[in-house]
Amino acid sequence: MKIAILGTGSVGQTLAERLAVKGHEVMLGTRDIAKTLAKTEKNMYGGPSFSEWYAGNKQVKLGTFADAAAFGDLVINATQGSNALGALALAGSANLKGKILVDVSNPLDFSKGMPPTLIPEFCNTNSLGEEIQKTYPQSRVVKALNTMWCGLMLNPSLIGNGAHDVFICGNDPEAKAVVTTLLQQFGWQMQHIFDLGDISAARGTEMILPVWLRIMGTVGTGAFNLRVVR
Amino acid sequence: MKIAILGTGSVGQTLAERLAVKGHEVMLGTRDIAKTLAKTEKNMYGGPSFSEWYAGNKQVKLGTFADAAAFGDLVINATQGSNALGALALAGSANLKGKILVDVSNPLDFSKGMPPTLIPEFCNTNSLGEEIQKTYPQSRVVKALNTMWCGLMLNPSLIGNGAHDVFICGNDPEAKAVVTTLLQQFGWQMQHIFDLGDISAARGTEMILPVWLRIMGTVGTGAFNLRVVR
Repeated sequence: MKIAILGTGSVGQTLAERLAVKGHEVMLGTRDIAKTLAKTEKNMYGGPSFSEWYAGNKQVKLGTFADAAAFGDLVINATQGSNALGALALAGSANLKGKILVDVSNPLDFSKGMPPTLIPEFCNTNSLGEEIQKTYPQSRVVKALNTMWCGLMLNPSLIGNGAHDVFICGNDPEAKAVVTTLLQQFGWQMQHIFDLGDISAARGTEMILPVWLRIMGTVGTGAFNLRVVR
Repeated sequence: MKIAILGTGSVGQTLAERLAVKGHEVMLGTRDIAKTLAKTEKNMYGGPSFSEWYAGNKQVKLGTFADAAAFGDLVINATQGSNALGALALAGSANLKGKILVDVSNPLDFSKGMPPTLIPEFCNTNSLGEEIQKTYPQSRVVKALNTMWCGLMLNPSLIGNGAHDVFICGNDPEAKAVVTTLLQQFGWQMQHIFDLGDISAARGTEMILPVWLRIMGTVGTGAFNLRVVR
């Protein structure tokens, strides 16, 4: 499948690499190609800079947000939540029209210091996932994978034999079915793909972030995930 | 131990019953004793009315919020979140002074219809747990057990062999140690008692509620809980 990933940070890189390995054609979208290619500082987790990473991942295409959105049959929003709507505006509604738009971002607000809170207008009575669906009514938004570290998103078997859960939600059942198939390709077992219903469930999954950050602080790693035990 | 439970709803009843079975002396606190005893309508889950329940649980004492708080060496707030501060005011700061105050409530806002959202002033940049600690600085607030159905709170082995997690947080390590011992008495295993640090972690655990409600809607029961898989 032709897949566009908006955002060239560690989430975008991690997803791009694994999608490419599975045979998908991937284009990363960014605001400014030259600036992104020139990045030589380590990423915020001490991993390779974009230019280093890209040198080892030339199978991944790089374009503007608009190039990537035009290229992809499916578009993944892996930008920082605070930049998501801006990036999607640059991607362009015409390039997103009719497409499945998988939103893995979280509306984290770093402006008030650490730990981040959620951006108030996308919290409790709204969510970033809903806002994206409202802004792009002709796209089929599926909120997914935003409740875990990117290293697990397409590699669930890294911990606990993959026996932990991914939450998905969205208004379009067909779009969710396509995302479910994609998740299964990466090892998510059906009983661990948790469809929470329409896109308003994104309020719930985005509001997991504050406890997720506290758990990460307690266990000292992002390599954990939640499981619904019954 | 002498334990006060503020709130006579299904959470208060369930906790009272199990605490009494384990040999604790329990007093339930309510706003109006006569009114509570006169309740003959089924509870919101179709369970017995308070008067029916109480007829079978005479080992549990019943008093005003102030009676109960004065009685208990440890006080559990099991009121509805929207009434929590009012109930605690009636309990009285003198009766709560120096005591461990276990807050199991959630700041759910039912005023805008279903599903409930969180009360805005106790969400994202504050929490009910924090607000209670700020209001009663001489009490030792421990937020605990608020992320699950009351039927599991003191009966974790009901599902998944008890292999799921209870989150606790609070500013007083000794108070958390007492609560931890109490939890262990009811079958919570040490590796499933998750101390998230100071009381500000209550933001995270209270913000689990929206996704908890969606999961409940999906699985059709409250008999589930979250587990952190590593």
